[in-house]
Amino acid sequence: MQTQIFMVHKRHLGLRAPTVLAVGFALTILVGALVLMLPVSAADGQITPFLDALFTAASASCVTGLVTVSTAVHWSVFGKCVILLLIQIGGLGFMSVAAIASFVLRRTITLHERMVMSAGLNLSDGGGIVRLTRRVLFGTFIIEGTGAVLLSCRFVPHYGFPKGITMGVFHAVSAFCNAGFDLMGTPDDPFQSLIGWAEDPLVNITLMALIVLGGLGFFVWSDVWDKHSFCRLRLHTKIVLTATAGLLLFGFGWTLLFEWSNPATLGAFDTPHKLLAAAFESVTLRTAGFNTIDLGALTGPSQAVSCLLMFIGGSPGSTAGGIKTVTAAVLVLTAISAFCGRTTVSAFGRTIAPRSIMNAVTLLMAGGVLCLVGACAIAGIEDAPFHQCLFEAVSAFGTVGVSMGLTPTLAAASRVILIVMMYMGRVGVLTLGVAVFMRRREPPRLKYPDADVFIG
Amino acid sequence: MQTQIFMVHKRHLGLRAPTVLAVGFALTILVGALVLMLPVSAADGQITPFLDALFTAASASCVTGLVTVSTAVHWSVFGKCVILLLIQIGGLGFMSVAAIASFVLRRTITLHERMVMSAGLNLSDGGGIVRLTRRVLFGTFIIEGTGAVLLSCRFVPHYGFPKGITMGVFHAVSAFCNAGFDLMGTPDDPFQSLIGWAEDPLVNITLMALIVLGGLGFFVWSDVWDKHSFCRLRLHTKIVLTATAGLLLFGFGWTLLFEWSNPATLGAFDTPHKLLAAAFESVTLRTAGFNTIDLGALTGPSQAVSCLLMFIGGSPGSTAGGIKTVTAAVLVLTAISAFCGRTTVSAFGRTIAPRSIMNAVTLLMAGGVLCLVGACAIAGIEDAPFHQCLFEAVSAFGTVGVSMGLTPTLAAASRVILIVMMYMGRVGVLTLGVAVFMRRREPPRLKYPDADVFIG
Ligand SMILES: [K+]
Ligand SMILES: [K+]
Repeated sequence: MQTQIFMVHKRHLGLRAPTVLAVGFALTILVGALVLMLPVSAADGQITPFLDALFTAASASCVTGLVTVSTAVHWSVFGKCVILLLIQIGGLGFMSVAAIASFVLRRTITLHERMVMSAGLNLSDGGGIVRLTRRVLFGTFIIEGTGAVLLSCRFVPHYGFPKGITMGVFHAVSAFCNAGFDLMGTPDDPFQSLIGWAEDPLVNITLMALIVLGGLGFFVWSDVWDKHSFCRLRLHTKIVLTATAGLLLFGFGWTLLFEWSNPATLGAFDTPHKLLAAAFESVTLRTAGFNTIDLGALTGPSQAVSCLLMFIGGSPGSTAGGIKTVTAAVLVLTAISAFCGRTTVSAFGRTIAPRSIMNAVTLLMAGGVLCLVGACAIAGIEDAPFHQCLFEAVSAFGTVGVSMGLTPTLAAASRVILIVMMYMGRVGVLTLGVAVFMRRREPPRLKYPDADVFIG
Repeated sequence: MQTQIFMVHKRHLGLRAPTVLAVGFALTILVGALVLMLPVSAADGQITPFLDALFTAASASCVTGLVTVSTAVHWSVFGKCVILLLIQIGGLGFMSVAAIASFVLRRTITLHERMVMSAGLNLSDGGGIVRLTRRVLFGTFIIEGTGAVLLSCRFVPHYGFPKGITMGVFHAVSAFCNAGFDLMGTPDDPFQSLIGWAEDPLVNITLMALIVLGGLGFFVWSDVWDKHSFCRLRLHTKIVLTATAGLLLFGFGWTLLFEWSNPATLGAFDTPHKLLAAAFESVTLRTAGFNTIDLGALTGPSQAVSCLLMFIGGSPGSTAGGIKTVTAAVLVLTAISAFCGRTTVSAFGRTIAPRSIMNAVTLLMAGGVLCLVGACAIAGIEDAPFHQCLFEAVSAFGTVGVSMGLTPTLAAASRVILIVMMYMGRVGVLTLGVAVFMRRREPPRLKYPDADVFIG
C-alpha cells in the first residue's frame, strides 16, 4: 500500500515536470514580449509591434538569435537588458532561475521542485540537483566573466570605454548561452553579425571557447569536474565529448573543402584566416548562431552540411536545440553495430538500452517532420527559394539563429511558424510530446509475440 | 557434432549469398555494357562510348531509368532488345533467371542455389523458394501481357501496327519492372518521357497498375494469393500494403496541394486531369521513373517531398530501390510507440524485433549518408544548383530514374558516381554491407552492462 502510494505520487510528479517546463517557457516568452512592446524598450521611444516583440522574446528565451529587427539598432539600452535577461533565463533554463529564487528565500527545496528542475536540465534523476545548480551558477559566472574581460580587450579600444565593456559582456553572455544575439548592426547594415571581426583571432577564439563550453551541457561539466580521468566519466559524458569533437572536426574539414576557393566566403582570406573562419563556422553552426562569413554565399554542399549540423545541434542539458549530439551518436553507433553483425549497440564498454535507441529514432523522425513541414509551409507562404526556407526552419529548430537573410522579410504567418519551431526546438520534442500525449500513462500491455520483418 | 557441421555449412552459405548477388549484378552490368557498345546496338551503326553503354546497362539492370542518351533515338532495335532483357533480368532479379535456367536444364535445385535465390529476393529463408519462383514467372508473364494489350489499344492507333505493339510491350515491361525506360523520345525532344500522354486515362491507369503491382514485391503477391483475408496475412505483407497505400495517398495529396495552381505543372490541366496527373506523379515517384509533368518545374516543397518518396522507394523483394517502405514504417511505428510511452514497438498485434529496428536505423543512416555524399560530390564536379544534384542522386539511389534534366549533361566522374549509387540502391546497402564487412562473423561477445543515455 505504501509502495503504491509512492508510485502514484512519483508518477504524478514525473508527468507534471515536462508540463511545468513547457508552460513556464511559454509564459516567460509572453511576459518578455509584453515588456519589449513598451516604448521604453525601443530606441525611438515608440511601441514595438506585438509580433516583432514576440519574435524577439521567443528568440532570446529559446537562445536562438533569429531576429526580425536589428538588435543593435531597434532596441534601447533597457530593451537590450531585457533581451540579455531573457537569454540568461533561457540559457540556464528557467528551472535554475527558480532554484536561485528558492536559495535566496532560504526555503528548503522540495522533492517536487527537484523533479521540475531535473526535467529542465534534461537529467534523469533528481539526485544532486541542488549541488549541480550551485555549480552551474558559479561556473557560468566565472566563464562569462572571463570571456567578457577578454572580449573587452578588443572592444574597448574600438568602441571606447563604456560601450566596449557592455559589448564585451553582452557578447560573452550571448556566446556562452549559445544565443547568437549580437550588437554589431548599424543602420546601414543592420544584420551583419560578426563579419567585421572575421580576421581577429582573440575575438574568434574567445567566442569559440565560450560557445563550445556552453554547448557541452551542465551535466558534462559537473562530471568532468568530479572525475579526473576519461575512463571514469559517465557513458553520457564520454559520448558527448567524443561526438562534439567529431562534429567539430567534420564541420571544419567540410567547410575548408567546399569553401576554400569560394571568393564570396573563405576565398577572400589568406590561409591562417581561412583556417580561423572555417573553425568559427564549424563551432557556430552547432548551435551558436554568430557568423563571420556570408552564409547566403555558401556553396550547395556547405549549405546542406550546415543544415545537418544545425539539425543535430548541441548536447542534452545544454543551451542547445536540435536533436542533440547523443541522439546522432546513438544512431551512428546503431548503424555500425548492425553492419558488424552485432545484435546489441555498445559504446565504451556499455550496452545502450533499446529504449535509448527508440528515443533517438523518435527524435530524428519528429525533428525531421517538423523541419520539413515548417520549411514547406514557409515556402508556400513566401516567394523565396526552398533551400532558404529550409535553412531558416532548421536554424529555428536547432535554436541556431543563423540566417541567409530571409527572416527580417518574412510575412506574419511565417514568423509565427518560426516562433513555434524555436519553442519546440528549445523545450524539446520529447518533453513536449510527453507533456501533451502522456496525460496518463498507459496500463502495462501484454507483450505481443515477436515477429521479424524484412528490412531492406 | 552433426549440428555443428550443419551450422558451419549454413553460415557459410548465408554469407556467400549476398556476395554472389553483388558480384552477379556487377557482371550482368559489365556484359550488358559490352554488348551495348557493339555497332549493331546503335541506331547509327557506330560504336557507343564505353561510359554511355555502361551507364545504360547499369540503369537498365538496376531498373533505374536514368539515361545519358535517348533510349528511343540512340539505340537500334537490337540495342532496345538488349535493354529490355537487362530490365527483365534486373527486375525479376537475376537469381530468378538462374532458377529458370535450372528448370530448363531439368536439374534439381540445390540448397545452395535456394539460399542464393533467397538473398536475391530479399527473403529470409529458403523454404518454398521454387514454388515462389514459378509463381513469380507466371504472374509476371500474365500481368505484363495484360498491360501490353491494354497499352497497345492506345499505341497501335497512334504509331501504326508493328510499332504500336512493340511500344506496348516495352512500356508494359518497363512499368512492371519499375524501370522507367521509355521510347517516347524524338530527335527534337529526346528526353520527354510520358509528358505527351499526361491526359490519357487508359495509358496512365494501366501504367499505374503495373507500377504498383511490380513495386509490392513477389513475397507480397504470394502471401495475398495464399490467404484470402487481410487478418491472416503475414505481418510483412500487412505492413507493406498499409505503408504503400499511405505513401501513395500522401504523395497524391501533397502534389495536389503544392502544384494545383503551378502553371508549369498541374495548373495547365482541368480538374479531372489534375487528379490523374497528381496520382501518376505519386505512383511514379515511389520507384517507377516515368513522368507526365515537368519535374524541373515543381515547387520547392514538391521537390523536397519527391526526394523523400524516392528515398523511401518501394517494398522489399520488389524491383524497387531506396530504403524500402517497411523500413520507413518501422521507423514511424517506433516514433509513435515512444510518444505513447511504450517500451516495445508493435504492429498488427506483433512485436517488432529490436533487430529489425536496428536494421531500419542502419538503412536510414547509410542511405542518407550515401545520398548526401553523392549529391555533394556531383555538386562539387558540376556547375549546377545543389537541389538538382541531390534530386539526381536520390533518384539513382532509389532506382527511380526521374530527372530534372541534369543527367545527360553530366561529366564522366558524376556519371560514375550515379552508376555506383544505382548499383548500391538496387543490390541493397545491407546486402553490400554484409558482403563486404561480414567476411566472417564475429564470435559472440560478452554482453556489456546496460546503460541509459539521455536522449533529447
Ligand atoms: K543560437
Ligand atoms: K525506376
